[in-house]
Amino acid sequence: MDNKRDDSAVLDRLDQGLDAALDRLLNFLRIPSISTDPAHKNDVRDAANWLCAELQSLGFEASVRDTAGHPMVVATSPQGEGRPLLFYGHYDVQPVDPLHLWNRPPFEPALEEENGRRLIRGRGASDDKGQLMTFVEACRAWKSVHGSLPANLTLLFEGEEESGSPSLVPFLTENREELSASLALICDTGLYADGRPAITTQLRGLVGEEVVVRAADRDLHSGSFGGLAANPIMILARALSALKDENGRVTLPGFYDGVEDLSDELSRDWQALNFDASEFLSRVGLRTPIGEKGRTPLEMAWNQPTAEINGIAGGYAGDGFKTVLPGEARAKVSFRLTGQQNPEKIRKAFRDHVQSFLPEDCSVEFHEHGGAPASVMDTSDPAFAAAKAALSEEWGREAAYIGAGGSIPIAGDFKRILGMDSMLIGFGRDDDRIHSPNEKYDVESFAKGARSWARILGALR
Amino acid sequence: MDNKRDDSAVLDRLDQGLDAALDRLLNFLRIPSISTDPAHKNDVRDAANWLCAELQSLGFEASVRDTAGHPMVVATSPQGEGRPLLFYGHYDVQPVDPLHLWNRPPFEPALEEENGRRLIRGRGASDDKGQLMTFVEACRAWKSVHGSLPANLTLLFEGEEESGSPSLVPFLTENREELSASLALICDTGLYADGRPAITTQLRGLVGEEVVVRAADRDLHSGSFGGLAANPIMILARALSALKDENGRVTLPGFYDGVEDLSDELSRDWQALNFDASEFLSRVGLRTPIGEKGRTPLEMAWNQPTAEINGIAGGYAGDGFKTVLPGEARAKVSFRLTGQQNPEKIRKAFRDHVQSFLPEDCSVEFHEHGGAPASVMDTSDPAFAAAKAALSEEWGREAAYIGAGGSIPIAGDFKRILGMDSMLIGFGRDDDRIHSPNEKYDVESFAKGARSWARILGALR
Repeated sequence: MDNKRDDSAVLDRLDQGLDAALDRLLNFLRIPSISTDPAHKNDVRDAANWLCAELQSLGFEASVRDTAGHPMVVATSPQGEGRPLLFYGHYDVQPVDPLHLWNRPPFEPALEEENGRRLIRGRGASDDKGQLMTFVEACRAWKSVHGSLPANLTLLFEGEEESGSPSLVPFLTENREELSASLALICDTGLYADGRPAITTQLRGLVGEEVVVRAADRDLHSGSFGGLAANPIMILARALSALKDENGRVTLPGFYDGVEDLSDELSRDWQALNFDASEFLSRVGLRTPIGEKGRTPLEMAWNQPTAEINGIAGGYAGDGFKTVLPGEARAKVSFRLTGQQNPEKIRKAFRDHVQSFLPEDCSVEFHEHGGAPASVMDTSDPAFAAAKAALSEEWGREAAYIGAGGSIPIAGDFKRILGMDSMLIGFGRDDDRIHSPNEKYDVESFAKGARSWARILGALR
Repeated sequence: MDNKRDDSAVLDRLDQGLDAALDRLLNFLRIPSISTDPAHKNDVRDAANWLCAELQSLGFEASVRDTAGHPMVVATSPQGEGRPLLFYGHYDVQPVDPLHLWNRPPFEPALEEENGRRLIRGRGASDDKGQLMTFVEACRAWKSVHGSLPANLTLLFEGEEESGSPSLVPFLTENREELSASLALICDTGLYADGRPAITTQLRGLVGEEVVVRAADRDLHSGSFGGLAANPIMILARALSALKDENGRVTLPGFYDGVEDLSDELSRDWQALNFDASEFLSRVGLRTPIGEKGRTPLEMAWNQPTAEINGIAGGYAGDGFKTVLPGEARAKVSFRLTGQQNPEKIRKAFRDHVQSFLPEDCSVEFHEHGGAPASVMDTSDPAFAAAKAALSEEWGREAAYIGAGGSIPIAGDFKRILGMDSMLIGFGRDDDRIHSPNEKYDVESFAKGARSWARILGALR
């Protein structure tokens, strides 16, 4: 069968069925599945049941699976030829506070028009119910045209993503065999800022550390002890300020081991994004990128590691003034990692660094706050080129491989537990207001999103 | 008349009258003159009245003088020959919380015996009722022996010292002429740590600054912005850590202008104190003095200026971890000044220093929190040598000129408003537990304190 022709039949079916698909999404959005709020426990389960019934109606073998928290929904298509793929999304949503800032009740969704754009308005419209339904609708159209679902497809929907996913790792571990595939598809990201379709192929990792420097065993008077007693804030300031040199480069020995320069393809793709760092920073009142000299701003944001002080406290910093010479000072420090940087080696190098600033009569305590390597997808897997071509065709402009400065833990979990890379594709836009009042999803994102998945499924089958 | 013989008569009179003097002190201590507690407003006035009546009974022209807060007591002896002297003390006391830690009701004072030492136990026994009464009792014995008070003596007793002295500067300003003298005597300090009598001849000054560094106009996610957006904690850490070089010397240009090395006499006196910095620091869990290399520990504590970070705050430093890249960070910084250092020049140098660390798209805000030069008494005034000799004779060991690391604002006020130096002499001990439960004053401090003042009055007349 000619894929090209298949595609167009499925795409036509999606276009014809758009109104019905939007109706289904609105029904889904009416279920207030706020996972962080115990009062909505049953609503979360209702959303799982709703989704499970939809999937069953399409011919998936689907079930609601209990966990220690909210349930998972797992659906599988019949065995057959073709590559085993795992699709992931989440059906829980963020809380809606502050309610008074919403222009309509958050769980009474509706289609609206704004500046010539059709929008789906309501909590979860984008994150992640609207996004996950693009994939479900693509499966529906496929089934309708081909008479059967694509083979070897597993769908995993989580109900705790907005609550920190406490049940996810245990569930992946316990169901490793059932969930393992050759590639994961994750639909929880967005288009690039300018509306260009994008596949996120690398995410930075993270090392989090808390450091507490202790000097005197109590707070002292800076008159009596100033000049004699060590000041833990000063010790901490010295250690932290020495983390970077004047070129913005992190000074920890071995820190850059495993950091890799961009491939030619990524270099080209990122160049084509025409990222305007000054414009980006101007949105938060800044102008000048502070990363390592000689790097482009997108390298600084996506392909270069960082050392950041996330918090610091010591002594008296409230109103007025106290001439205290404090007994301790603390800071939270995080490192964003790229390439093959080793989180535990970097944690150790950081601790050694701080120790080296410590006078002999002071002490330091460290607390670990997470560590995960960067996720760097193997884009030589032909699925990436195929998906890129499919996205480019659908959106009428060249799709790009992009990076992300933050982590998406699920991608790391899939790699670590299920041994597979993830292809992160989504259709959200910067102005979707996810996690905020008046969340929306463009009807264009929804419609072209479903068409994108139909093309990608066609290309990967 | 032979001073020596006068002294011994006055001293004998003090010895004979000790029990009666202690009774008077206990009566004074029974008045709960807590100046910070509005419920004790009348008690504070009662203490002023009690003191005023005592002074009148000795022949002083004394009155209770209203202020916006608690009253002052001012007493003057008849005009006559001899140097005009102003004696200062305060009759208010600290609050008594936590009450349950007291072994007796704080305002039911008594004489106790502990480890062979006779103690006056009760709130204010040392700070400052017991101390100020040493001077009053010396005047009483003088009057009794000589038939009249020493001429040209003004006594000023404050009722708000434990409340930050809000009425003091206005009162000094309004009564400048009446209160001006050639030297102030202040009895609110202590013996040196080893029980040696001491005159405090220099106090460090202070410059207090609050600095707020602002980068982005909101808190950012360190994943999205880390590597691009300036981190105000890092900027602050760099600026603050660069305040000192590796020898512990402050780096601000011109900072040491006006800092003077010790005179030979002070050098000898301080050497003789045998200050054991390790022992001193061990009381608070430390060992090693951190001041400028090449300085003795007492120089670090008393004669060298400092730069201290008293407080710092920025981002999230509470439980757990937030990968925030904060929009602002703040610190409180103070400089202890010595010699002739100029507070305003140092404030400006500090602000320029911080500015020089600021990226062009960040901003900084400074708030002034006080500034006062060091108080360095002119010990070439013969009163100092005379008092030193008198103290040495009374205590049977060489009295010392000492310094203090902190400020005693009244000494600066006397210099600035009344144009005179202060001779700070007191008989408190390190274990007096002033401001704490079970405050005490040694009967020896009280008795020998009064005898010390009698000798000093004899020497200065």
